Amino acid sequence: MLIAQSGGPSMVINQSLVGAVLAARRSGSGVGKIYGALHGIRGILDGAFIDLRKETTATLEAVAATPSSALGSVRHKPSAEDCLAVFRRLRQRDIRYFFYIGGNDSAETVHILHEEAVKNECDIRCFHIPKTIDNDLCGNDHTPGYGSAARFVACAVKGDDLDNRALGGVKIDVIMGRNAGFLTAAAALARTEEDDGPHLIYLPERPFSVTRFVRDIKAAMRDYGRCVVAVSEGITDRRGTPLVAAFTREKDSHGNVQLSGTGALGDLLANVVKTRTGITRVRADTFGYLQRSFPGVVSPTDALEARKVGEEAVLAAVGKNMASGSIAIRRKPGKRYGVRFEVVPLHCVAKVTRRMPDAFISPEGNYVTQAFLEYARPLVGALPPCARFSQLRRCGGGPTPGKRKKA
Amino acid sequence: MLIAQSGGPSMVINQSLVGAVLAARRSGSGVGKIYGALHGIRGILDGAFIDLRKETTATLEAVAATPSSALGSVRHKPSAEDCLAVFRRLRQRDIRYFFYIGGNDSAETVHILHEEAVKNECDIRCFHIPKTIDNDLCGNDHTPGYGSAARFVACAVKGDDLDNRALGGVKIDVIMGRNAGFLTAAAALARTEEDDGPHLIYLPERPFSVTRFVRDIKAAMRDYGRCVVAVSEGITDRRGTPLVAAFTREKDSHGNVQLSGTGALGDLLANVVKTRTGITRVRADTFGYLQRSFPGVVSPTDALEARKVGEEAVLAAVGKNMASGSIAIRRKPGKRYGVRFEVVPLHCVAKVTRRMPDAFISPEGNYVTQAFLEYARPLVGALPPCARFSQLRRCGGGPTPGKRKKA
Repeated sequence: MLIAQSGGPSMVINQSLVGAVLAARRSGSGVGKIYGALHGIRGILDGAFIDLRKETTATLEAVAATPSSALGSVRHKPSAEDCLAVFRRLRQRDIRYFFYIGGNDSAETVHILHEEAVKNECDIRCFHIPKTIDNDLCGNDHTPGYGSAARFVACAVKGDDLDNRALGGVKIDVIMGRNAGFLTAAAALARTEEDDGPHLIYLPERPFSVTRFVRDIKAAMRDYGRCVVAVSEGITDRRGTPLVAAFTREKDSHGNVQLSGTGALGDLLANVVKTRTGITRVRADTFGYLQRSFPGVVSPTDALEARKVGEEAVLAAVGKNMASGSIAIRRKPGKRYGVRFEVVPLHCVAKVTRRMPDAFISPEGNYVTQAFLEYARPLVGALPPCARFSQLRRCGGGPTPGKRKKA
Repeated sequence: MLIAQSGGPSMVINQSLVGAVLAARRSGSGVGKIYGALHGIRGILDGAFIDLRKETTATLEAVAATPSSALGSVRHKPSAEDCLAVFRRLRQRDIRYFFYIGGNDSAETVHILHEEAVKNECDIRCFHIPKTIDNDLCGNDHTPGYGSAARFVACAVKGDDLDNRALGGVKIDVIMGRNAGFLTAAAALARTEEDDGPHLIYLPERPFSVTRFVRDIKAAMRDYGRCVVAVSEGITDRRGTPLVAAFTREKDSHGNVQLSGTGALGDLLANVVKTRTGITRVRADTFGYLQRSFPGVVSPTDALEARKVGEEAVLAAVGKNMASGSIAIRRKPGKRYGVRFEVVPLHCVAKVTRRMPDAFISPEGNYVTQAFLEYARPLVGALPPCARFSQLRRCGGGPTPGKRKKA
């Protein structure tokens, strides 16, 4: 068998890798050699393989607990020609099973390879093992990698809320997720007490209105005397234009400076708040790559499930003799959290992006619902406890975030 | 007694607060009421106090483990008039001991209050309890708050290095610290193996040359095939002008866009690398406020010492009957890490900023020395372990970061 990793890393992507390797080792005569290709499809094309039977269990376990892709990663969509080159490499080493860990682009790669294999009568079983911090794979309740990234976001916003509580004003946090708001929504898990932040959450699933944003901020300042905002990097205006681009175009005619760069969205929103509300202390941070690779901030459930999807892929390919598929996580019905794993056809997962369902977004479009919190909490796990002096706790009856519009 | 917090929060500032409160409680009849003022000097002027004897030990311990200033914070330098108003408040409640937790600005506030108290024959003992993630207080080996912030930075750069290892190119991380490079330098603790990042570190203690920076990056790319860079937000050109300002001014005559905002320095450097080296994958992140408030990423040594400086301040004021001072941490000589606490005069700590000593900076000015690593390691504690496949470890003889200039 051959296994590789692709796309953006996550905190638990190596759990899936090690899960698959250990399951293959346990399969006895089912699998002979276990190859790992370096930097995904690129490594297969270049013949850059390592022998994963040579690694000790101790090393495998240590790698499993390490963030980012231990085999290296790549962003490359294979052409038909690439596929033929891949098949040559696989035949050279008598490889019958191919596993690829990644998001929907990686699922597409597996799908292309599988279709080309069928077309070329190449006997190779192709499996996709899900991974994405964006939580945007179709056919899945959630994806490995999301729980840990969401944990990082919730912790970061929790700390930031405490910081804002101490010094006041408005704080804007820009969070990853271009098309799906799941990761930004996880900021809501930071909130444990009535007047905790985040007080507002803006997702790419809803058009962003600057006017309403300013009104929301003013209402939050009235209610809480301060305001913490979580914003997805992917928010757009009504026409679907990314906010920074929309704003720059609109403002260009007035001779204003173009906005660009990593902090552009946060700076733009901070500037809007300053100029339109007169609030002086307004700060913005863009969380960036830390969200997907910070060591030590891992959701135990996420780590466990990431391990399982790797194992399940090998069981499906070797044990059940299936030709192709992607492992999907489905949630069991009932109050107690539990999941089962299913093999779904590759085309169900490839390319398409799942977005936040309406039931997870507040009617005002500026917060998440209780349903989202119940959905996300078991994926992220208990956060480090934070406490206040009893004399400083706001007692009862405070306004609930996400009701700003009616205030 | 009265205690308050001031300046930027840290992960362990509440340890100092709780350390002082519990020491005062233990002092028996030495201290009567224990007041906490909200938002520092501002709360004293407004008479916003809470009674810290009313809080249970369980609450105090839970607050101690919570990041950011539990009493709220402020940035305000008291005028002579403010001081008289403060003294009136203190007299009203028969307060004889004043403790202020903060950095060098807060030490200055305590110093001003003490001098005014002497002038006005007001019987009040004034103590400064040190706190700053910048580690820039004079008269101290290091300061409470630094170890935990440094731990966050080291973890973040560790994860980022793994991310860069997977996807390649150049990654630039901008780290807090306007005048002192201690926090940026802590990025070096992320490096455990020969070819780990960070490969380059730039500190505000050395003038930054764009030409040399580009040369350094090219050399690192040659040696490692990738490059992770830690840069202090405070780097300046030869004349001491902050880099973004210097670059904007220099470029303005060519009609280029002005750089500003939270991501400006990272974007500027990323742009320089892209245009002058032709490397396509260049990314930048600015760590921002997370460095001082992320819950759960705490150095145990830092937490312990933060607790101790709070206790020591109360012991000095009440037990030893001293009139004023700041608690300083001194390192005991010898191989095994240990510290002792001393009371130093307020003027030694107030206002002045300590910078990285020359012995901690590599001769080339683009890395830290072994002496810095030995200095910082016990303050930060062991990082979460990260591992690689044995077949992917670079064996022996690789180049050492910080030697770029000679390469």
